[in-house]
Amino acid sequence: MPNPRIATVIGTGTIGRSWALVFARAGCETRLYDASAPQADRAKDWLLKNVTLAVQERLMTSEEGMVVEQCVVVCRDLGSALRGAEYVQESGPENLEAKQRMFAELDRLAEREAILATSTSTLDISAIAGGCPGGHRCFVAHPVNPPHVIPVVEVLAMPSAAEAQIKRACAFLSSVGQSPVLVNHYVVGFILNRLQAALVKEAINIVLSGVADVNAVDATVRDGVGLRWAVMGPFGVANTNADEGIRHYYRRYGSAYIALMNDLGPTPAFDEAMIEAVAAEVDQMTGSESTADQQHRRDQLILRIRQLKRETSRGV
Amino acid sequence: MPNPRIATVIGTGTIGRSWALVFARAGCETRLYDASAPQADRAKDWLLKNVTLAVQERLMTSEEGMVVEQCVVVCRDLGSALRGAEYVQESGPENLEAKQRMFAELDRLAEREAILATSTSTLDISAIAGGCPGGHRCFVAHPVNPPHVIPVVEVLAMPSAAEAQIKRACAFLSSVGQSPVLVNHYVVGFILNRLQAALVKEAINIVLSGVADVNAVDATVRDGVGLRWAVMGPFGVANTNADEGIRHYYRRYGSAYIALMNDLGPTPAFDEAMIEAVAAEVDQMTGSESTADQQHRRDQLILRIRQLKRETSRGV
Repeated sequence: MPNPRIATVIGTGTIGRSWALVFARAGCETRLYDASAPQADRAKDWLLKNVTLAVQERLMTSEEGMVVEQCVVVCRDLGSALRGAEYVQESGPENLEAKQRMFAELDRLAEREAILATSTSTLDISAIAGGCPGGHRCFVAHPVNPPHVIPVVEVLAMPSAAEAQIKRACAFLSSVGQSPVLVNHYVVGFILNRLQAALVKEAINIVLSGVADVNAVDATVRDGVGLRWAVMGPFGVANTNADEGIRHYYRRYGSAYIALMNDLGPTPAFDEAMIEAVAAEVDQMTGSESTADQQHRRDQLILRIRQLKRETSRGV
Repeated sequence: MPNPRIATVIGTGTIGRSWALVFARAGCETRLYDASAPQADRAKDWLLKNVTLAVQERLMTSEEGMVVEQCVVVCRDLGSALRGAEYVQESGPENLEAKQRMFAELDRLAEREAILATSTSTLDISAIAGGCPGGHRCFVAHPVNPPHVIPVVEVLAMPSAAEAQIKRACAFLSSVGQSPVLVNHYVVGFILNRLQAALVKEAINIVLSGVADVNAVDATVRDGVGLRWAVMGPFGVANTNADEGIRHYYRRYGSAYIALMNDLGPTPAFDEAMIEAVAAEVDQMTGSESTADQQHRRDQLILRIRQLKRETSRGV
């Protein structure tokens, strides 16, 4: 393994630049490559600005900030971006043919042992890299936007991948502070977007049926069940909902759950009428706070919650 | 309004005693009444122990702790428990006839202006208090267990309730640090349990179909989407997922959401095979940590997350 470890970011838009911060923050030499050179330069600027802000907001010491800044290099050609890299994260456009071409190129040019990962949220790794000689070292590593704030990464390997290879990819992601979760086989939406869609589906139904307004639904999550879910997932929560654990809880409330689950609403139409009905109430809820300020507030709070969780004995 | 304000807790089990802590912590004179006198005494003991712990863990100063301790009174008869009380929270067994009898009694004995609330998670307030002369001042105030940790309270009024009366009930709950959310009309599960059931339904399906294991699903929530939901609800999240806000986000991803929502799994059977399949993996995930320790860790972390949210400009 090279020293320091080298991570390469291919495609430096919103997701790619955030990945670069993850790698650099963890002390990797971080290479930025983009077919558009000015885009890569902008990504580096964003990263430096973000580090300055993190230091100001005491999420990073100024020493840590300086180390991060020194780790990041923009590369003008793909070959030099990949030289010596242990881990490569591709975050280009969500287009199968483009990703197939890129992975053929990455597989040809990268180090023989390099892990090659894509940020795709919709495509199967078999479709992207099934034709590559080095397909066994190719993965989906789907982050949540932005990965420097949210640690979870959904990892989907090729069916041909060896157990040790999958462990290596997950170990790398853990070593840079992310939380890899293994998706055993391809399904649309992987894990996170399926769970999210299930909740959003019912949230929209509650609003459209007049049971509650947008702010009431959001408050029920942010001041209610979401507080639990920042600490434990649905199974951990079920296990702590009865003193005797999840078996007791599911036995006792199983029939209530079944009745509720059977009563949930249908898939809503995402038409202009629905969108405007919901969005008008969102405008009321958010008031004069700009979207950028909302995003900033959300990300800063999440980073502090993660700090809090790290300070306790378990959790990320 | 009396000074200090008086809140009465009827039924002092797990939920009732936690309500008592909410009221006492907010400086209300807090009366505990239970048909079983030893139960009320145990609730007071629990409360005092909890305050000592909160002081030790610096969630409360010792001065605040002393104030709370002095606020709590066990009452041996219902009449004296209700005298002068502004707010009454009933948390007896989840049984319609028992609650009807209790509300008839409360309506007869309580102050004319007192707000009468029930912690029911399943019953309609019209069914419980529809026959009471003072039904207009009766409410469901459904907490999340335990209410001294999770602030959200689902409020359901009688159809005959005046707007001002609903506002008064919500204002009282806000004044003691809770987050009331209005349920406009009765549906099974109100808001929170419907949202939770939607997510749990898909979580179980993901495990049963072999897409991911219990720990992967839980990690996807606690290190992923749950971090967002502790800060913003699903609509606030959607609004920050695109720089241009929720309209743009829903227009762009509407068809992807529809495809995902249509692909979600069916209601699982809560039979022993399912329960054991899930529970065995939960055992692995939680390892040697006892359920009590898991509960304690969860609650302490949530209380600290709330502290963090209070320290930032917005949010509870």
